[in-house]
Amino acid sequence: MPAKLTILGSGSALPTWQNSPSGQILELCDKSFMIDCGEGIQLTMRQMGVHTARLYSIFISHLHGDHCFGLLGLLTTFDMMNRQQPLHIYAHADLEKLLRPMMDYHLKNMSYEVVFHPINPRKQEVIFSDHTVTVETIPLKHTVPCCGFLFSEHHRRKDEQTGELTYETRKRYAYCSDTMYREQIVPQIEGVDVLFHESTFTQEWESRCSKTMHSTARQAATIARQAQVGKLIIGHYSSRVDDHTIFLNEAQEVFTNTILAVERQSYEI
Amino acid sequence: MPAKLTILGSGSALPTWQNSPSGQILELCDKSFMIDCGEGIQLTMRQMGVHTARLYSIFISHLHGDHCFGLLGLLTTFDMMNRQQPLHIYAHADLEKLLRPMMDYHLKNMSYEVVFHPINPRKQEVIFSDHTVTVETIPLKHTVPCCGFLFSEHHRRKDEQTGELTYETRKRYAYCSDTMYREQIVPQIEGVDVLFHESTFTQEWESRCSKTMHSTARQAATIARQAQVGKLIIGHYSSRVDDHTIFLNEAQEVFTNTILAVERQSYEI
Repeated sequence: MPAKLTILGSGSALPTWQNSPSGQILELCDKSFMIDCGEGIQLTMRQMGVHTARLYSIFISHLHGDHCFGLLGLLTTFDMMNRQQPLHIYAHADLEKLLRPMMDYHLKNMSYEVVFHPINPRKQEVIFSDHTVTVETIPLKHTVPCCGFLFSEHHRRKDEQTGELTYETRKRYAYCSDTMYREQIVPQIEGVDVLFHESTFTQEWESRCSKTMHSTARQAATIARQAQVGKLIIGHYSSRVDDHTIFLNEAQEVFTNTILAVERQSYEI
Repeated sequence: MPAKLTILGSGSALPTWQNSPSGQILELCDKSFMIDCGEGIQLTMRQMGVHTARLYSIFISHLHGDHCFGLLGLLTTFDMMNRQQPLHIYAHADLEKLLRPMMDYHLKNMSYEVVFHPINPRKQEVIFSDHTVTVETIPLKHTVPCCGFLFSEHHRRKDEQTGELTYETRKRYAYCSDTMYREQIVPQIEGVDVLFHESTFTQEWESRCSKTMHSTARQAATIARQAQVGKLIIGHYSSRVDDHTIFLNEAQEVFTNTILAVERQSYEI
């Protein structure tokens, strides 16, 4: 199965007529990973008929509402669907403190276990690894502790002569949202097949962009060019910019192989 | 301005490809009232371009997630839009206990005040009243404490001879969700212009309906007939019934003037 990314929400904090808060599904090596879970993500998934049987883990970049307010509804829906497999949530430690009282009230006797894995967004480290996929944090710079995630797909190969096992890295996907322009991430994401980088603002809003610690489309593209990625997907659009082709044009001036994240669309990695 | 009801969400606990969790906007006497606020309600409002400048109060029937998980996102959006007027939330006292820690974390230095008004869902009482609108609770019977709301529009009239002020009741709208069949509500809602009554299940699911303390379409229509309401709107559809015309047909056999709640549609009261 080819690696696939589905955009469920690609707006920023303020929802608009065309964009919902952040959420993505990455399918890699027959597993599904959810990245961020803003309000309405589970509704979009249900409307699209996205299957969740292979969804074992959710990665939350930071605790702004547009990246996590959809979790409680999703957990509730899984319970109603009588989910059995544990669900692993990787996020800042505060998430569990906030969600547990809500879960205790709304989700008594759940059909499955939720396992919280506290992460340190300031540190680059491997937070998940099995025989086919590794996930590591990408420290970002935003108004609250925040990190991106680098997903790497591995394939075991046995040397026919020596019998030795080696691991070959195949597809790599990097998710970077929310962040100001941050060149320090370039070495870590160098050469990834696909980079999602937030581009909340266009050039016109540069001063607001700095103030809110976000990136412009041009800055996202500059990171993509420096890291020589295969393809750049931009998103996390500000409600102040209605016409997304402005984002695209500004990014493509710097990095040609840029596309816009469109909600409910899937992209091959 | 004619009284108007807009359906934002008309599904039940499990969202489907066609239905989102509960939420309505009632416009009465130049004021807007929100009734229930499931996940995604604010997204639908933004997509539809619903104005919220005159929305001063929200009425929450009970604390199941599909009726209140959208509140936190809505409060956040109002804050980002720099709302100034206080927002009044009428709900079971537990709502404030659950929401306050989330608000303290996610919504520091809010631009407006949120005023919680604890209500007793077991008691029929007036919980809001100004010179044009009165709202009273309608005690319902569900798996958790739950009440409906009766909205009555008043107009002051001065007697030309005596100079005495009298109040004339004009439009009345009753919202009843979630509840099992409950004839006790009939006297209170008698003759309302429009009744919204939940009809989670069709006849086929009658045993599940009793178990989960919901109503069938036929039961909703029986209440409407007994109360001699002007019009019945049914909704809160179970995810188990894909074809909503079954609800409609079953209800219309008992009460002809029944219509289906359709999301993103408005109905004159």
